[in-house]
Amino acid sequence: MTSPETFHGWLGHDSTAAKGNLSWQPFTPKTFAETDIDIKISHCGICGTDIHTLRSGWGPTHYPICVGHEIVGHVVRAGSSASAQKFSLGDRVGVGAQAASCLKEDCDECARGMEQHCPKGFVGTYNGKYPDSGYWSMGGYADYVRVPAHFAIKIPDGVKSEDAAPMMCGGITVYAPLKNNGAGPGKRVGIVGLGGLGHFGVLFAKAMGCAKVVAISRRRNKEEDARAMGADEYIATSEDEKWERKHSRTLDLIVSTVSSPDMPLSGYLRLLRTNGEFIQVGAPEDILPAISAFALIAKGCKIGGSQIGGPKEIEEMLQFAAEKGVKPWVEQRPMKQANPSVVDMEDGKARYRYVLVNHDHDDHAKL
Amino acid sequence: MTSPETFHGWLGHDSTAAKGNLSWQPFTPKTFAETDIDIKISHCGICGTDIHTLRSGWGPTHYPICVGHEIVGHVVRAGSSASAQKFSLGDRVGVGAQAASCLKEDCDECARGMEQHCPKGFVGTYNGKYPDSGYWSMGGYADYVRVPAHFAIKIPDGVKSEDAAPMMCGGITVYAPLKNNGAGPGKRVGIVGLGGLGHFGVLFAKAMGCAKVVAISRRRNKEEDARAMGADEYIATSEDEKWERKHSRTLDLIVSTVSSPDMPLSGYLRLLRTNGEFIQVGAPEDILPAISAFALIAKGCKIGGSQIGGPKEIEEMLQFAAEKGVKPWVEQRPMKQANPSVVDMEDGKARYRYVLVNHDHDDHAKL
Repeated sequence: MTSPETFHGWLGHDSTAAKGNLSWQPFTPKTFAETDIDIKISHCGICGTDIHTLRSGWGPTHYPICVGHEIVGHVVRAGSSASAQKFSLGDRVGVGAQAASCLKEDCDECARGMEQHCPKGFVGTYNGKYPDSGYWSMGGYADYVRVPAHFAIKIPDGVKSEDAAPMMCGGITVYAPLKNNGAGPGKRVGIVGLGGLGHFGVLFAKAMGCAKVVAISRRRNKEEDARAMGADEYIATSEDEKWERKHSRTLDLIVSTVSSPDMPLSGYLRLLRTNGEFIQVGAPEDILPAISAFALIAKGCKIGGSQIGGPKEIEEMLQFAAEKGVKPWVEQRPMKQANPSVVDMEDGKARYRYVLVNHDHDDHAKL
Repeated sequence: MTSPETFHGWLGHDSTAAKGNLSWQPFTPKTFAETDIDIKISHCGICGTDIHTLRSGWGPTHYPICVGHEIVGHVVRAGSSASAQKFSLGDRVGVGAQAASCLKEDCDECARGMEQHCPKGFVGTYNGKYPDSGYWSMGGYADYVRVPAHFAIKIPDGVKSEDAAPMMCGGITVYAPLKNNGAGPGKRVGIVGLGGLGHFGVLFAKAMGCAKVVAISRRRNKEEDARAMGADEYIATSEDEKWERKHSRTLDLIVSTVSSPDMPLSGYLRLLRTNGEFIQVGAPEDILPAISAFALIAKGCKIGGSQIGGPKEIEEMLQFAAEKGVKPWVEQRPMKQANPSVVDMEDGKARYRYVLVNHDHDDHAKL
């Protein structure tokens, strides 16, 4: 069991890649460091960020690029460092949206398990530049990935690989703000948007034992799914009349997975109870709609943001998912169907997450 | 010791009142209820809200009006209810910006000591309408005030009346968000605006033992005062070049006492460290400048609002002020000088709070 010198993956060469114009090609991974591990990829979820990045939606992308940061696979090579030696060959591990941070002792963020907020050394799992080597990171629509071991997390036995994969980014993005803002018994929680992230929001909020979980979407067409995921109520903001008034002061916490300048932010804030919190996750390029200070002052509310989670937090989430049997709604697609899957994802067809599977690795991956 | 049937106060009759056009006149207080107390007023601070209200700045004011909600005086009459019988005649008490709430057992806010957020029965100390009697509340630029005893707080011996008065609104408005958001040892705190509220912010943050207190104002002209109050650093946003960058990621908590659509909110947010919070207090009529979701997500920050505090919280603040010897910077003016004092307040001359004093009550007030 080892890794080849050349990896293969679905490479995008320009912004047309987002339209399903990826090519399966060889590429050279970063130079192996003793803090690295190589993972033979069995599964990789398709995240909205993949497509934004493929089309240079958040600024110029460094092409050629291999996207994918909801990676699960098996360790096939481990460096000699302590962090890499945590893993044994064959261990099933996951990698999320972050591949590196400074990890210095004097970095408050890294020292406190908030590597995702490291101000100095954040490197994304793809389209990020390693400061030491200058290598541009390459993601998980591939056969192998090489990453610093610190950012790989062992998957507990109770979680299937196809379920763990989308948790690595989509799952942690909503799990963290729920957990960090008191979701649990006695709390009434709203989840705005019912896409990949939002569906995790409903599942996790329910599993956390929240008193009420309310799915909030524009239209009513996802109500049946939302209720099947565990939502107790459903609000369709573009179809329900006076929804802001009707549901006024009913929620302690809202996690919003949509970010659009025309989202009804003031309406969402009306749903909050005194001292309620509205946490925005996901797409960071948008300006939030302007709100009056009064909307925050009158009820002592807060608007916040949250960004993925550190490795410890991802580990905790996976453990939680294993214990509670949290099962995301995924549709598995063969890795060779990356192009049509990207197109379907962009068309909003995912119910609720596509996961690419390296079928030809199956025998190998089972070791 | 009792109260007259008719009270006297400085009444405003239209929006010109804000320009120092108040008349000392008799008025009839609300019908005495057994839950009420009458207070012989010795001191009343001048709050910015007084002037906003006098000129109908936040919507139409109910004229004639007597403003003033930083009231200190002595109890001269107490109803038979338990809440009123907490007080003995002669007790020195204070009343802040709130005179009533529903106080029902099933009101979450009232039950949890957050009467200021009561969704059903909030009545301001002036320009508020009592739901039972329909009486419009009258404030403290007067000789007496009649209020529900629940909203009067005994002043501890260690705090002078002229110091306690401005704490009743100005003080609690900044004390509460500091205390409720972790200000204390190890925390680096910024206070935006150095007016009546902001000067309390610096004083309280210092008294709470914060690791660093930074005063943030537009110009540098208040630096000496701020440092004398206890500020460790001073940022002048319209005079210091690249202040956002220079002080980037240096503060855990910012309490903003200014609210203007052109305030440099994005700049303030740059000052926050990971998981930092920006709490807006004060003037609620403005729209906050639009910000990018990214500003909140990238550092896991929050923007919140806070509104005065409940009676228990005010009591706690007064105790804290007594213990720590927190001494606001006040300038005492005779009650008869209400008109020129309102004008000076509006002209920004207060350093940092005017307190009107009923000198002709002195002998009486000392009992």
